[in-house]
Amino acid sequence: MMKKFSNVKNMVIAQSGGPSMVINASLVGAVLAARAPAASQRIGRILGACHGIDGIFTRKYIDLRKVPEAKLMRIADTPSSALGSVRRKPTPEDCRRIFEEFRRLNVGWFFYIGGNDSADAARIVAEEASQEGYPLVAYHIPKTIDNDLRTCDHSPGFASAARFVACAFKGDDLDNRALGGVKIDIVMGRDAGFLTASSALARTNRGDGPHLIYLPERPFSLDGFVADVKEVLKREGRCVVAVSEGIRNAKGELLAKRFAGGERDSHGNLQLSGSGALGDFLAAYLKSKAAIRRVRADTFGYLQRSFPGVASAIDRKEAFTVGGIAVKHALAGKVTKGTVGIVRRGMKRYAVGYEVYPIAEAAKYTRSMPDAFIARNGHDVTPAFLAYVRPLVGDVPRCEIF
Amino acid sequence: MMKKFSNVKNMVIAQSGGPSMVINASLVGAVLAARAPAASQRIGRILGACHGIDGIFTRKYIDLRKVPEAKLMRIADTPSSALGSVRRKPTPEDCRRIFEEFRRLNVGWFFYIGGNDSADAARIVAEEASQEGYPLVAYHIPKTIDNDLRTCDHSPGFASAARFVACAFKGDDLDNRALGGVKIDIVMGRDAGFLTASSALARTNRGDGPHLIYLPERPFSLDGFVADVKEVLKREGRCVVAVSEGIRNAKGELLAKRFAGGERDSHGNLQLSGSGALGDFLAAYLKSKAAIRRVRADTFGYLQRSFPGVASAIDRKEAFTVGGIAVKHALAGKVTKGTVGIVRRGMKRYAVGYEVYPIAEAAKYTRSMPDAFIARNGHDVTPAFLAYVRPLVGDVPRCEIF
Repeated sequence: MMKKFSNVKNMVIAQSGGPSMVINASLVGAVLAARAPAASQRIGRILGACHGIDGIFTRKYIDLRKVPEAKLMRIADTPSSALGSVRRKPTPEDCRRIFEEFRRLNVGWFFYIGGNDSADAARIVAEEASQEGYPLVAYHIPKTIDNDLRTCDHSPGFASAARFVACAFKGDDLDNRALGGVKIDIVMGRDAGFLTASSALARTNRGDGPHLIYLPERPFSLDGFVADVKEVLKREGRCVVAVSEGIRNAKGELLAKRFAGGERDSHGNLQLSGSGALGDFLAAYLKSKAAIRRVRADTFGYLQRSFPGVASAIDRKEAFTVGGIAVKHALAGKVTKGTVGIVRRGMKRYAVGYEVYPIAEAAKYTRSMPDAFIARNGHDVTPAFLAYVRPLVGDVPRCEIF
Repeated sequence: MMKKFSNVKNMVIAQSGGPSMVINASLVGAVLAARAPAASQRIGRILGACHGIDGIFTRKYIDLRKVPEAKLMRIADTPSSALGSVRRKPTPEDCRRIFEEFRRLNVGWFFYIGGNDSADAARIVAEEASQEGYPLVAYHIPKTIDNDLRTCDHSPGFASAARFVACAFKGDDLDNRALGGVKIDIVMGRDAGFLTASSALARTNRGDGPHLIYLPERPFSLDGFVADVKEVLKREGRCVVAVSEGIRNAKGELLAKRFAGGERDSHGNLQLSGSGALGDFLAAYLKSKAAIRRVRADTFGYLQRSFPGVASAIDRKEAFTVGGIAVKHALAGKVTKGTVGIVRRGMKRYAVGYEVYPIAEAAKYTRSMPDAFIARNGHDVTPAFLAYVRPLVGDVPRCEIF
């Protein structure tokens, strides 16, 4: 009896870009699908490359077939990218080295988990493979807390970060109720305001903050900001403000740009996070323009993508599912390259479906908040946004006021 | 039959200083003790003054006898100070106005929940009452996330903030594992390092951060900081740093002082929180002195005292208890003025007891981390500190790494 090995190829999977609370769920979802008995006819070794494509260059792999399932399930519930991550746009020379290594390892399956930039990296690898004639099935698995992938009704990772933001505003608004004044909180989201907008989920009682929500999708003016805050102070006696790190002036220039050290990743993105400068600037500006007793600013920073114990249950489940879908779809073999998209099937009763699109669809474009989600005044969200986001985020701890 | 009213006096209770996740538990613990059938022979109306002693001046009260118990229990589980708070040191003139209002309302019981400054406010009111001959039973109920009350083995509010800090470092350390470089996190604590030190609870695996912990109790040198970080980078390839907002140079000057706007409260405290400047300065300094690819700083800010859903169960229970103890002790009448202290009765098997001390004991002194809790190198904690803090904080979500 002859063993039929010809069909068996090894698999490389990796994580890329900013971590999230559930990107490990996608990793484990994919690995367990690849370890399923039916898949082992086609998938041999399952190698987790450490720190994205860098792990292919450094030959740092974790043998994911050998990791016990119980441990994998604990990894799935752990925030951040367990394989390590990287921000690196592969050059043609990088791709040549990747295929050299893939040839050495007999790799035929490649899965790359991440956001737009990671999708672009996967697209480049996939296209270069086709051009070089290297036989590779390559899939992008979506993840981004910014929620700006065009291929997903909502991106895995977003809802958990949104849940952190909603909880944070819930508590911070109560804090502001106690001591008064103006509180400015800076939220992540370079190009899209979804995460900042989710702060609105903190509102349950009349007068609850955030009272103002500034998004990258609408031009931000310092004068308008001061006027808006004064109006809220007059009405509520206090003011909580949600500000996206990606707010831009009327010319489309990032406000945070003036504080950034100029550090850029290989995708050309300017570093915005990991600094409190934008919030401090807005607080100082407000103090200089209005006689307000107490102005404070906090920047949520990396906590909103890594804090353990606050992930959205639906987000975790869907992140796990998209990983598995990618592997199953790759095995089905209808298309050799793709990205998994999430489609909303039901609005009243929440339901989703999964589709596979060309990777370029996720890589090329970023998605902004649609106009229907942004209030006319430009500094709030609409009921339509709340109806969209609430089922994803789930319950925010109930809080009571007198 | 004649009703005997002579013994019945009304009660005023209020919250003061920085909010915490469990200060409402203390409020509700006190209110429910005052509403107990036995207490109603002595306590008439139960008035919650809004925004500390300011509520006495503005005559803004909540009738806490009328609030349904179910609502009170939800308030107890809600972060921040539900009655509102204030930072105000009462002047003799303030006290005169307070007693005038107390006379009008027939107030004989006064409870003030807060930290050192609030204890000092309670002490001033209590002493002025004695001097003026106003018959007042006055108790301070302890609260502070800084854990610097000398009268408490640990202060209500501390353990919940510590749990937030431990969770935050747990997630942020995983984030740093994924993308590398140096991450600096600024933690609250003006004079005492307990909260910053609690970041050590995030460590479970070898190599886990925080790798460096800088406390107000040890002089901080910028050169030493750079050298320490370089050493960790050499050993671990990455570095997570916990820094107290209260770090001081060898002359005892607050580093944060150079960034502070000079805003002080009526107790003379300089505003430190609500700004990312210290973290940004340390990140920029490090970058200027060492060739490090990636340096980021976050400042936890008000989230660490207000985030819903992360309170320590023991902290909540004890906060509730100290409120009730204050009222019961006041009713017992052995002393007319006091502050409730927490005494650790068991270290191996966690147990506490409660004592009442003169208010001045809580007001006069602040407590620093004892030497036995600080590692010899000056930038870490000892096993003795971990043994002290772990039972208070409880479980930190378990995280798994490959």
